Amino acid sequence: MIAEIIAAGSEMLTPFRQDTNSLYLTERLNELGVSVAFKTIVGDNIEHLTSAAKIAISRADVVIFSGGLGPTEDDLTREAVGAALGLGLRRDTEILTRMYKRFASRRMAMPQNNAKQADVLDGAEVLENANGSAPGQYIDTVVGRHRKIVILLPGPPKELKPMYEAECRPRLAATLPERHMAKRILRMALIPESQVDARTAPIYKLYTDVETTILAGSGEIQLHFVCAKASASEAQSRVDELAGKIEAEMGEAIFSSHGESLEEVVLLMLGLRHMTLAAAESCTGGLLAERLTAVPGSSRYFLGGAVVYADQLKTTFAEVPEELIRTEGPVSEAVARAMAEGIRRRTGAAVGVGITGIAGPGGGASGPDVEKPIGLVYVAISFAAEGTAKVTELNLTGDRERIRLWASQNALELLRRSLLERA
Amino acid sequence: MIAEIIAAGSEMLTPFRQDTNSLYLTERLNELGVSVAFKTIVGDNIEHLTSAAKIAISRADVVIFSGGLGPTEDDLTREAVGAALGLGLRRDTEILTRMYKRFASRRMAMPQNNAKQADVLDGAEVLENANGSAPGQYIDTVVGRHRKIVILLPGPPKELKPMYEAECRPRLAATLPERHMAKRILRMALIPESQVDARTAPIYKLYTDVETTILAGSGEIQLHFVCAKASASEAQSRVDELAGKIEAEMGEAIFSSHGESLEEVVLLMLGLRHMTLAAAESCTGGLLAERLTAVPGSSRYFLGGAVVYADQLKTTFAEVPEELIRTEGPVSEAVARAMAEGIRRRTGAAVGVGITGIAGPGGGASGPDVEKPIGLVYVAISFAAEGTAKVTELNLTGDRERIRLWASQNALELLRRSLLERA
Repeated sequence: MIAEIIAAGSEMLTPFRQDTNSLYLTERLNELGVSVAFKTIVGDNIEHLTSAAKIAISRADVVIFSGGLGPTEDDLTREAVGAALGLGLRRDTEILTRMYKRFASRRMAMPQNNAKQADVLDGAEVLENANGSAPGQYIDTVVGRHRKIVILLPGPPKELKPMYEAECRPRLAATLPERHMAKRILRMALIPESQVDARTAPIYKLYTDVETTILAGSGEIQLHFVCAKASASEAQSRVDELAGKIEAEMGEAIFSSHGESLEEVVLLMLGLRHMTLAAAESCTGGLLAERLTAVPGSSRYFLGGAVVYADQLKTTFAEVPEELIRTEGPVSEAVARAMAEGIRRRTGAAVGVGITGIAGPGGGASGPDVEKPIGLVYVAISFAAEGTAKVTELNLTGDRERIRLWASQNALELLRRSLLERA
Repeated sequence: MIAEIIAAGSEMLTPFRQDTNSLYLTERLNELGVSVAFKTIVGDNIEHLTSAAKIAISRADVVIFSGGLGPTEDDLTREAVGAALGLGLRRDTEILTRMYKRFASRRMAMPQNNAKQADVLDGAEVLENANGSAPGQYIDTVVGRHRKIVILLPGPPKELKPMYEAECRPRLAATLPERHMAKRILRMALIPESQVDARTAPIYKLYTDVETTILAGSGEIQLHFVCAKASASEAQSRVDELAGKIEAEMGEAIFSSHGESLEEVVLLMLGLRHMTLAAAESCTGGLLAERLTAVPGSSRYFLGGAVVYADQLKTTFAEVPEELIRTEGPVSEAVARAMAEGIRRRTGAAVGVGITGIAGPGGGASGPDVEKPIGLVYVAISFAAEGTAKVTELNLTGDRERIRLWASQNALELLRRSLLERA
């Protein structure tokens, strides 16, 4: 059973806007065992829309439209589907009455063109819109001996998603064989995709009933396992079995076995050890703190820290001796170590992190740093209970944004590994 | 003249990956006066690809494929276009030789399936790939008395973009009437889209030869003006004239008249005034510092600051009296003011910013804050040369991420307006 998703709207044919509803709809359809074979994006043009509708109905079993159900002249999905399927439109008095009431309750007169939203295709079921004025429509029909399901949904994701959940998913599920899906996500940081694939492919390829997807980006690899079976427990035990074998193979490289982010995992590990964290950041400029504080509840374990971009602030906030900065340069192993130890002392945290580096595009500022290459970053981690901070030298590539992101990612992964050793 | 863009690749029919090449291609095609009427996303399936190719060639003048030119069995764009246009494929010995040499230079044997990348459609021009192994193809042909241009480009953006620039743009430009495009972007922060539209529509609607697009999101409104004329200066003078009138109408609300970001504008204004900046952030957790330091060269005017997430750090790093935190609560006008003044003094900056608020999902932590609502944020700005810091109370809505983003956006806009008054 294959589906086509059609996004209607001229704004999605500009360089500025993209259809995103189809990602959501694809995930939901896949859960029901329906795969998406085509996606089409078409403008607010009755001829183009009608032809796109005809083509989709001829090549797919399920066709879902998003957008083009509003009250303006540009909203033409109803008309196009009517033309493609040879169905007439009737103005539904119940919908119309509801719309008049809605406007009346706000003491407003309903603009005449709004009435168009009450036009329903012959034989269509009306899908209630809990979050907007345009109702959806669901057509289950036969075209040339083939059963076709054609669904019209509003474009705004806030309206489309709840309408799909409440109105479409149950209807589709009822017409399809019963299936239960189970999912697992394993996440790893700072490991090459090729290495993950080489080590895991011999395992996941044996599970032909589990769909494995490897996603790579921003210093992270995700392994998604999806399995569909007639019973939920059967599906779950298959993905759990596979995930278990992959965990055994990849070991500590896996930071998350149920999808948590690296930030969440680090905060969780701090919590389990009753430890607090503080950070002194130079080249990352607050990115590490920003990532940690984006997690709700992070305030319990992340105290905060300092963005010591200017050299004098490295001294003011992280107690780095001026002399050290002068002799070693602000981007040095010694300064990173002093930052981690200093911020830990100043904040009273159990763990201190120091990050200093050259993010580019300009090189090292002055003194000993002038010769140092863009992408050179030092990450230091200091534990209150222990001696000198441990420093890791990184040689990152890419532009400013990438170097900053990877520096923060390395700092989080180094934190995780250090905490792991201190279980 | 209309175009269709076809993205080939099954990964773009999953919930994980989206076609993004079409945004780039749309912008470039628009510059030449070609509008995109359809976008199709299709999997690695010869039947589906061939049918999509046929449909596109029948309804568009220019058809651009991205993806499906690699060496694997799944790379089927060449075959599908051949079938759709009735063209044969010949193995190009020149390309083949180049590929063998490339592998030899790396002391590797070329895998046999790579040879497929040397298959060229009859009548196609080969487009050199400076950044990968798959060459592109350009077909300028006639189908049923209509001229059709069909272009095959590789999927990776790093390969597609330079190939389009170097090989396709000149060819397309030569076949189209000469056109010169001028663009201007005006940017505004924290102003409702409806207000911008109400005030500017009466102006931009008079410029029927300029295409105006309003983009709204993340606390910012952008107005894009695009004009195409036979001469570059004519196009430029039209967009400049319109932009000038909009600037006169919107006045100081416009922070950028040539597209610069709000962060860049604030740093530029600091530079012009020979001022330095430091920030003490609580609820934004480093987001303001991160945004400012993302700008290359920001270190000259942004010294850094402190992420004073824990209450005691507000005292340690920003000299906020403990007593004040106890009596007023950490989320209060008084604490925000003390943070801005304290961080300014501690860092020696000319300007200090303090941000404190409740980002949620949890409410105020304790004491006087317990009653305060999620979304309550105070932003204080302190100038060295002046008396007490000025504090602005914000009542933001949305989730944690949105509240943090809008708080940082408000801080930047308040900084800009304060600097404007101190010209």
